[in-house]
Order: sequence, then structure tokens, then C-alpha cells
Amino acid sequence: MEIKVVKKALAAGEAVAGEIREKLAENGVYMVNFMGSPGSGKTAVVERLLESGLGGLRTAVVEGDIATTADAERLARFDIPIVQVNTEPFGGDCHMPPNLLASGLEDFDLSALDLVVVENVGNLVCPAEFDIGENLKVVVISVAEGEDKPLKYPLMFRESGLCVVTKTDLVGALDFELGRLRENISRVNGTISIIETSARTGTGIDELEGFLISRTGETIT
Amino acid sequence: MEIKVVKKALAAGEAVAGEIREKLAENGVYMVNFMGSPGSGKTAVVERLLESGLGGLRTAVVEGDIATTADAERLARFDIPIVQVNTEPFGGDCHMPPNLLASGLEDFDLSALDLVVVENVGNLVCPAEFDIGENLKVVVISVAEGEDKPLKYPLMFRESGLCVVTKTDLVGALDFELGRLRENISRVNGTISIIETSARTGTGIDELEGFLISRTGETIT
Repeated sequence: MEIKVVKKALAAGEAVAGEIREKLAENGVYMVNFMGSPGSGKTAVVERLLESGLGGLRTAVVEGDIATTADAERLARFDIPIVQVNTEPFGGDCHMPPNLLASGLEDFDLSALDLVVVENVGNLVCPAEFDIGENLKVVVISVAEGEDKPLKYPLMFRESGLCVVTKTDLVGALDFELGRLRENISRVNGTISIIETSARTGTGIDELEGFLISRTGETIT
Repeated sequence: MEIKVVKKALAAGEAVAGEIREKLAENGVYMVNFMGSPGSGKTAVVERLLESGLGGLRTAVVEGDIATTADAERLARFDIPIVQVNTEPFGGDCHMPPNLLASGLEDFDLSALDLVVVENVGNLVCPAEFDIGENLKVVVISVAEGEDKPLKYPLMFRESGLCVVTKTDLVGALDFELGRLRENISRVNGTISIIETSARTGTGIDELEGFLISRTGETIT
């Protein structure tokens, strides 16, 4: 399949996130924004979710990166609409800008979709500051990053409704305690959901799939 | 020891990085800017370097974080000047702003120092965009982040003179090839030095220590 790369310069629109939200609602589409550090495992989580089938939800993916189409290529084996958004031509933006996302979404027939998965640019800081019109913000953090990150980068955890902990198969090779991470997450955000996963072993993917199916269902029914 | 936290609002100064550079040069001080993702292992590398003794170089550390004094506390056991710079009161800046750094440096007697180590805010994107008056930019990347990161976040690798690869003790537990990472780094920056390290086993710390001693020596003699 062909992977479309959005590189056209677009005028910044202040209310673009609001327009995106409206358009999604009109079409009964739920949008999830996956955020997290480079290498936290966002793409691997999306891959496993697509493999899981997501209960038949008609899904499309927007891959955000500063450069390369590597992530979109990883997902090309799934027969779903995928758009790669590169921020490099725009100064290497450290987050998914709403206007680029809007341009990416134009490539989809929203009326034929239930769920849009956005993988943001790898960054545990800046993407949390930008509303992109999503229904759910998800922070992805790998156990290799350490238990202290919620305290050091609190905004990302405060803004998110779900935290996906990744690479839990590595816990044995690390000085890492999942309990302490959970505690630190809760100190920053008392209502966030937490799902522990391993893309390698498949642990927790069912739970994550169920979570997204349920949330999407609440919106589209 | 007491850890000083810089939280005073400061007027933005456009040429602040230049002023920092000038002041360091006047005092024969070399400054290294460690950058990298949250959890890439920046603090652990700094810890091991301080343990190594750095050939007797009189060293001070500026710890950058959005929130918490956790990193400065980790280094408090070393009898050296340490300042923690928190960007949260300034909107959670995703990088070390030169004006906050300048304010932090005021806490040091530069005439009594050879080396200032700055640990930037955890972020593989934004810190690369800001000159803070340093002599050397160092990008820190852990093997847990994946081999593709130099291609996806090229600016950080292009701007840096040294890449410290961390957590190499985990390679066996990962689907990771150091050779492929080196190749991707070289594709983005053909002249960058690369040092492979493990803070846990101590691998590569001698080499990194030697590198910094040599660079500092070139400046202060």
C-alpha cells in the first residue's frame, strides 16, 4: 500500500483542534492520541492493537514523526488507512500540530471509520500541551525509563486519561518496581487508568483492546 | 548539602547564551550539555563520571528538570557545587532556557572550576534547538530506545559532538543491534564520536571520562 506523507505547508488555524473534534463527532469517530518518549514503544503497542482486531472497529492510523516514514511502513501490512505526518519541513516540530493532523485526516473517509489512532511525535513533554481534538490522551511509558518519570514530567500524566506501561517483560533485567511507578502516577493523577503491557509477550494487550473498544462504543452509540 | 532551586522569574535575554560562553571562557571553564530522552540514563552517566574523579577536574553540576529535585539529590553525596533548575514555574519548559542556566551558574564560583556539567531536561527534540553557551553537546541514548532514533530525531544527533550510548548491559534482553545504531548515527552525523557505556557495569565510563578530560584540557590550557 502507498503511504501518504503530508508535507504541504498549511496556515496555522487557531481553532483547528475544535474543528477536528467537531468533524469526528459528526461522523461518530473516536480519536485516541498516543504520546510518550522516543522508544517508549508507542508503535509496537499500536501494532499489537491492530493485530488484536479491535473488535472489528474500523480503524485508521495517523503516524507522527519529525522525519522518516518508518512507523507507517511498520504498519503497512495492515489493510487500513494510514497517513504519515512529518513535522520536519515545519522546523522539526516536537509535537503533532493540529493543522498538520487536520490535513492528514482529510485523507480518510471518516464516515467509514469508528476509530482514529494518532501516534504523536516521541516526546514526554510538549505533546501534552496541545489539544488536537482527541477524545482520549494516552501516555505510553516503558519500564526502562524509570519509576520517577511521572513526578518529573507531570503534565503528560495529568493530561492523560490512560497510562500504558510498556516492556514489562524487561522488569526482571532492570532495577525497577512497577508498584513504585503506579504510586508515582497516582500522585500526579488520581483518576488515570493504568494498563501494564508487553508488546513482546502480548501481556495486557487484551485489556488495552477492551478499554479502547469500550470507550469507542460509548461515543459511537 | 543544601540543594539550591532556581525558581525566580527572569527576564528573557536574547544574547544570554553568548554571555554564558564569554564568562566561561574568561574563567577557563569547559561546559558540557548532556541531552536525551527521559530515562535515557543521563543522571546515571553523570553519577559514574563523578565517581570516576574526572582526573581531578574541579567540577560543578547544573541539573535541569521540569519538576522535582530528585536528580540533584542523587548527586548530593558528591562534595561538589550542584544547582537544580526547575522549569515548571515557567510553564514546564521542555529544555534548559539560557536565562535560567545563567541564573544557576551565578551560584558557582567559576574561577574555582574547570568543568560544568549541565543535565538538560529529558527530551530528545527541543534541547537541541537551543544554544546555551556550552562547549560540547552530548546526546545520550539508551539501547532500550531502539536503533532507529537517530533517523527519526536527526537534529539532536546532528548538533551533538558526542553520543553516549547507555544501558548496553541490556542488549542481550532486547532485539537490538549496536552496529545498526552506530550506522544510523553516522548517517545523520559523520563526525560525531560514539561511546558505548553501561552505568550498571561501568563499561565505557573510563573512555567517557578520558574524552571529557581531554576536551576540557584543550580549553583550559
